[in-house]
Amino acid sequence: MSMLADWVGVDWGTSNLRAWGLAPDGSVAFERVSPKGMGRLTRPEFAPALAELLADVTPARAGPLDILVCGMAGARQGWLEASYMEAPADLARLLDGAVRPEMEDRRFAPAILPGVCQHAPAPNVMRGEETQLLGLAAENPGFSGVVCMPGTHSKWARLEGTRILDFSTAMTGEIFETLRSHSVLRHSLNGDLEGPGRAEGFAAGAADGLERPESLLGTLFTVRAASLIADRQPDWCAGYLSGLLIGTEIGSNRHLIGNAPVPLIGSAGLCALYAQVLGMIGIKGESQDAATIVLAGLKAARSHAA
Amino acid sequence: MSMLADWVGVDWGTSNLRAWGLAPDGSVAFERVSPKGMGRLTRPEFAPALAELLADVTPARAGPLDILVCGMAGARQGWLEASYMEAPADLARLLDGAVRPEMEDRRFAPAILPGVCQHAPAPNVMRGEETQLLGLAAENPGFSGVVCMPGTHSKWARLEGTRILDFSTAMTGEIFETLRSHSVLRHSLNGDLEGPGRAEGFAAGAADGLERPESLLGTLFTVRAASLIADRQPDWCAGYLSGLLIGTEIGSNRHLIGNAPVPLIGSAGLCALYAQVLGMIGIKGESQDAATIVLAGLKAARSHAA
Repeated sequence: MSMLADWVGVDWGTSNLRAWGLAPDGSVAFERVSPKGMGRLTRPEFAPALAELLADVTPARAGPLDILVCGMAGARQGWLEASYMEAPADLARLLDGAVRPEMEDRRFAPAILPGVCQHAPAPNVMRGEETQLLGLAAENPGFSGVVCMPGTHSKWARLEGTRILDFSTAMTGEIFETLRSHSVLRHSLNGDLEGPGRAEGFAAGAADGLERPESLLGTLFTVRAASLIADRQPDWCAGYLSGLLIGTEIGSNRHLIGNAPVPLIGSAGLCALYAQVLGMIGIKGESQDAATIVLAGLKAARSHAA
Repeated sequence: MSMLADWVGVDWGTSNLRAWGLAPDGSVAFERVSPKGMGRLTRPEFAPALAELLADVTPARAGPLDILVCGMAGARQGWLEASYMEAPADLARLLDGAVRPEMEDRRFAPAILPGVCQHAPAPNVMRGEETQLLGLAAENPGFSGVVCMPGTHSKWARLEGTRILDFSTAMTGEIFETLRSHSVLRHSLNGDLEGPGRAEGFAAGAADGLERPESLLGTLFTVRAASLIADRQPDWCAGYLSGLLIGTEIGSNRHLIGNAPVPLIGSAGLCALYAQVLGMIGIKGESQDAATIVLAGLKAARSHAA
């Protein structure tokens, strides 16, 4: 049995490939996830991976099936490079910068959305988050403020409607994983990391990070010293490290935040931790469902076609 | 031919073992270095490593040869644990906390000096640096101020004469190595790191770190973005990362530094980089020879025997 779709939206990340089939009325006809993320594919493998995922899909109208892709498929090491739009930029115009890779299977007409770059105040790039930001703007007309996207590389962006003003990237998640696996701190994180001390350590680390974000290089070593001379266990140490990094990230963006709620786009677990730390400085973090937001962004990008 | 020594001073670090034979008049009779650092030895291998290094040494007076050891040989995973003195503490009394491991070869009488710990303002530990600090105090009577010891784990300590008031540890060197080898930044640091762009990158990174030490988690990603969209080469990126980390470390300790010169104890190359960055904020860094300083510390510890 074949599936009918008016068009297909795709979020092609580093570790996953996620596709939604959209019915003519805009509802989701199907959703599929594959582990064939950009990180696992060489250039010639992208088109077959997509064709395989959508093998049973038939266009609901004449002509090839439109497939709108965001994320790492457009990176230099991806399927076909989609060059960046430069911030400040109107994300509603993302489709203007799309590139169209060829597919042997002429039933499919894919387009890959660009990422966003900035040269000032500091060089930066994003790929995939720009579509989430557009989705957030589409779901919250008139929103203006800072948006936090926690993750391996957390993004902080200032939005005015569908315009992105500027953004930064904090390597918080990657620093956590790198230090946990490869630094002297690993000796203090060797054991049950999810024990009862985790929450206490997290709160202590977050407080230290919020209070002195400039001291990160020094407070990181507290993890090691606390296990050597204060008998802190691996669960406490893991919580402290996680809290310290997130607290430092939020503390260093304190000047951007103001008093309004901060939308959080990312995994539910990580967004809850960020909301907890934002709460420690009296700010409400509003967790968004990342999949819903990116699909809203793909829809908004498509609806603004020139 | 045997070597005569009144006593022997030993700096037993993680990667090296260094010994000085001292003549009765206090001059250095011989100096030896072995790669048998603490990191390469199991507990039963320490005594033989020392006996082998000093096999041809004869005491200049009756009785066994005194050997005074500082550094990682006294760590929990070392030869025999020497528990920490707690700061604030008078480093002139280090010998009071020494432990005396047994050696089969009764010609040798080793003593291992303790490290220093602190519980407040934040838990911290040092092992080996306390002897360098005592050496600095002995060589500069009346010195009072902050001392910086650049390295894998940089130490910053406040000294008043031979008293250590408090100290912190910045994981600067280890963060550099960890990010270079294991993070996404490695893609930007893949090539000739010593090219002509290194110095320019270093100066740019140091300026950013000094100006906004609270933004480290964010500015780190500049390394990646600069190579992606500003065509920065690996040498520039390596310089930027190094400068950013050292600038951040110095910037975060700005409140301790005042206007007086800062003694720097470490490798000559690293001390020169720290002196350059201190110079950017109008502070003179005074590089000390680490081997000279640690030997002065061993002498001072021995001369204050109870």
